[in-house]
Amino acid sequence: MLKAIKIVLVGTSHPGNIGGVARAMKNMGLAELCLVAPRAQFPHPEAVLRSVGATDILDQAKVYESLEEAVADCTLVAGSSARSRHLPWPLLEPRQLASRVQQELTHPEQRAALVFGREDRGLSNEELHLCHLHVHIPCNPDFSSLNLASAVQVLTYELRMASLAAEQTSQPEEQPFGTEWDVPFANGEALENFFEHLEQTLIEIDFHNPDKPRQLMSRLRRLYMRARPDTIEVNMLRGILTLTQKAARKPSESN
Amino acid sequence: MLKAIKIVLVGTSHPGNIGGVARAMKNMGLAELCLVAPRAQFPHPEAVLRSVGATDILDQAKVYESLEEAVADCTLVAGSSARSRHLPWPLLEPRQLASRVQQELTHPEQRAALVFGREDRGLSNEELHLCHLHVHIPCNPDFSSLNLASAVQVLTYELRMASLAAEQTSQPEEQPFGTEWDVPFANGEALENFFEHLEQTLIEIDFHNPDKPRQLMSRLRRLYMRARPDTIEVNMLRGILTLTQKAARKPSESN
Repeated sequence: MLKAIKIVLVGTSHPGNIGGVARAMKNMGLAELCLVAPRAQFPHPEAVLRSVGATDILDQAKVYESLEEAVADCTLVAGSSARSRHLPWPLLEPRQLASRVQQELTHPEQRAALVFGREDRGLSNEELHLCHLHVHIPCNPDFSSLNLASAVQVLTYELRMASLAAEQTSQPEEQPFGTEWDVPFANGEALENFFEHLEQTLIEIDFHNPDKPRQLMSRLRRLYMRARPDTIEVNMLRGILTLTQKAARKPSESN
Repeated sequence: MLKAIKIVLVGTSHPGNIGGVARAMKNMGLAELCLVAPRAQFPHPEAVLRSVGATDILDQAKVYESLEEAVADCTLVAGSSARSRHLPWPLLEPRQLASRVQQELTHPEQRAALVFGREDRGLSNEELHLCHLHVHIPCNPDFSSLNLASAVQVLTYELRMASLAAEQTSQPEEQPFGTEWDVPFANGEALENFFEHLEQTLIEIDFHNPDKPRQLMSRLRRLYMRARPDTIEVNMLRGILTLTQKAARKPSESN
């Protein structure tokens, strides 16, 4: 899906921003960059510098004279808009847009474009009217001008998230902490043995009196259950308990 | 919610990136920036230039010598990590993290920190071990190095989206463990004091030899960070340690 999306920059002033956009695109797995009437010379060394290695995207970038030409082969065109204009237009948030683009590109012959305007004044009304949809990043209304590469970063991030989610439609079971754990979690039996060992040890060091339990074991159980110890961790904790018992059982001088 | 989140930059090389981060933060409605041992002079004119008007954030930025100091008042610390490390740690995507932070900050006395590492090599393992959670932006595995300000932009965008979504719903947020927690979580300082006490105790009972650490403290740290002890629980654990030390220090008969 991500290869069927082009990023179109209209009238960009700073070549460094073009490089920053190329880097953001490549980070998120996009490849096709189009420039409409860039205001500085292109190619430009500052663009190469800011791309930090995404030079393949710069090398393959196409330059057009008008936005109309740049989006001629696209079935869905979305324009970045700072605020709602004179004439209200369908205005989506980035996540809604990503979902819309995702739907669009389930048809392999369809292509989408995301269009970004000038650093100082965005897209003109005429350019916005070439778009099917407008997209707005919901930012601080008192400080709403995003850096161009940052705006591209946020939108391409949402596109990538939508693309990854679509790939994983037959999602495997959710991992407990968002990552593959390398050791099996302790089973109920191992945990109960640990809690018994823990209680016994706490009695021996005079921390716990079963006749006055003060919710102590419940609180400790809640704490460790929350952490979901794996088998190595339970063995480690029990090793600590064994050595604690050894210290507690050591006959003292006064005996 | 957004004002209770601090962005912490560790060992940043380029002052321009600090400015870019300030701009991204202000765009998304965040205000508190902390710098840990920046490698260039700060304040710096390049930071002001790249902040494009977010100078209030730069002016109020605090500089610390260590990450530990910077997050001492935070109850939830999330570190940006490029990939899973030797020892797996709870790893979230930005959206999951935003939801997690949102839940955390329903308690007005709690505070969260997002920590970002050096441009060239991220956070050290020691720094990552000061975090409850790690967060990873799912980028192109063949080109995974995001610009620092871009990474901050993506994460703060997700935080803002979570914050706006929470404002728009009268529905109570799902609680982290299915229930309203009744006690505040321990902050960074309390946790570090606990880990120090734990290590000292394990040495005294001959479980731990700092010269042959075997990942022991890292594994214990990971376990307890996952559980997120509250203040009562930390006091309880420290009570156990104190009595364990008492047992270990008791002069034995054979002496």
